[in-house]
Amino acid sequence: MTTLLSPEELEARLRDVGRRRYHSLHPFHKLLHGGELNFGQVQAWALNRYFYQAMIPVKDSSILARMEEPELRRAWRQRIIDHDGDREGEGGIARWLKLTDGLGLDRDYVTSLRGLLPATRFAVEAYVHFVRDKSLLEAIASSLTEMFSPGIIGERVAGMLKNYDFVSKETLAYFDKRLTEAPRDADFALDYVKRNARTPEQQQAAIRALEFKCDVLWVQLDALYFAYVDPAMPYPGAFVPEAARARQEA
Amino acid sequence: MTTLLSPEELEARLRDVGRRRYHSLHPFHKLLHGGELNFGQVQAWALNRYFYQAMIPVKDSSILARMEEPELRRAWRQRIIDHDGDREGEGGIARWLKLTDGLGLDRDYVTSLRGLLPATRFAVEAYVHFVRDKSLLEAIASSLTEMFSPGIIGERVAGMLKNYDFVSKETLAYFDKRLTEAPRDADFALDYVKRNARTPEQQQAAIRALEFKCDVLWVQLDALYFAYVDPAMPYPGAFVPEAARARQEA
Repeated sequence: MTTLLSPEELEARLRDVGRRRYHSLHPFHKLLHGGELNFGQVQAWALNRYFYQAMIPVKDSSILARMEEPELRRAWRQRIIDHDGDREGEGGIARWLKLTDGLGLDRDYVTSLRGLLPATRFAVEAYVHFVRDKSLLEAIASSLTEMFSPGIIGERVAGMLKNYDFVSKETLAYFDKRLTEAPRDADFALDYVKRNARTPEQQQAAIRALEFKCDVLWVQLDALYFAYVDPAMPYPGAFVPEAARARQEA
Repeated sequence: MTTLLSPEELEARLRDVGRRRYHSLHPFHKLLHGGELNFGQVQAWALNRYFYQAMIPVKDSSILARMEEPELRRAWRQRIIDHDGDREGEGGIARWLKLTDGLGLDRDYVTSLRGLLPATRFAVEAYVHFVRDKSLLEAIASSLTEMFSPGIIGERVAGMLKNYDFVSKETLAYFDKRLTEAPRDADFALDYVKRNARTPEQQQAAIRALEFKCDVLWVQLDALYFAYVDPAMPYPGAFVPEAARARQEA
């Protein structure tokens, strides 16, 4: 079972994780990209994913703090710069808030996290804790979902622009940037994992780390699907699209 | 909004959290207790909840490690003794494994956690991290769901014995013990919270901690409901009742 793979075989195994488990396969994404969600459901997606976006530089700072070589830190710190920007209003988090603005969500409400689904919070925090508690190799390997993101982003932007009159090229600007940032980041991380996973155990740990990260993304969509697409029960305290609309109209 | 409550008012607010958000209200529990789940669905419940049970003494050890007074530690350590027992085969975790045994689940498979739903893992780990990272007051307040457990346990044991021929008084022995342990533990924790939540902010934090814990329990049932009662999609790697049965028959 655990034989030593060549770097190329390891890469193939990692790519296979994406083919089997990346959240592009989730029914919620098919509905999102196919134009089958209503305004409130798209709001719920953007609102919940805000927390994921906001925690990305926190998890990257945690990884940065564990890197002992300046060369590694120099490459990794760019991720933090990309998400936080150089000043207020710039960077990936700010671009995500332009999306939630564009969807008519009150910015204070979004950033307060009050309307977050608990499962979103638990999944995102699991990611933050994972990169702090596991080996550096596993922490870096867990970022490799970025290998799979250009495909889904292309599909998302095209699908959402075509199907929803409440989004625009401007409100989706976050994704444009990611189309260049993610492949650069993924190349670096993949190269690191291929060079540093030198035992069968390390290679399996890297594969499991990527599976874990796929779970983190998948569970967030499960939570959205079952709270907003096919709800069996209300979630105490979570965002309610109608109430949000009433609040804005008030 | 945040005025200082009397200890009795604080207790009433805490009890109100249970009335609104305790997992006794969850549709999955109504199905479980009403005999409306099939064998595989009850297996999935016992298998997933095993991880919660197994982590209880871990989270209590974390709380113990933060108590600076011998008097507090003397009371709290009993929780760990109750769950771990004095020797192999005793204590709450062992009693939970008698339930999974009785449901025909392979013990190595259960304890390997391989079949766990990711949302179960994230929710339970969120609890472990919460008691480590938040104030001691909040950590103790998060245990107060035990105030509400005697009611649900009575309902569960009666309902399951009446409705399922695959459970027995012996396999449900875990719950008998909890009927005496939980009220004793809850009394101590409630008294601590009432005495130590001395500012409006501390009182609100204690209420929020109990709401958080209700979310931890609720999300576990959401995950079971949507994976095993009303599934929209398979969960890669998670327990599949049929496959488990085939494995045992092989």
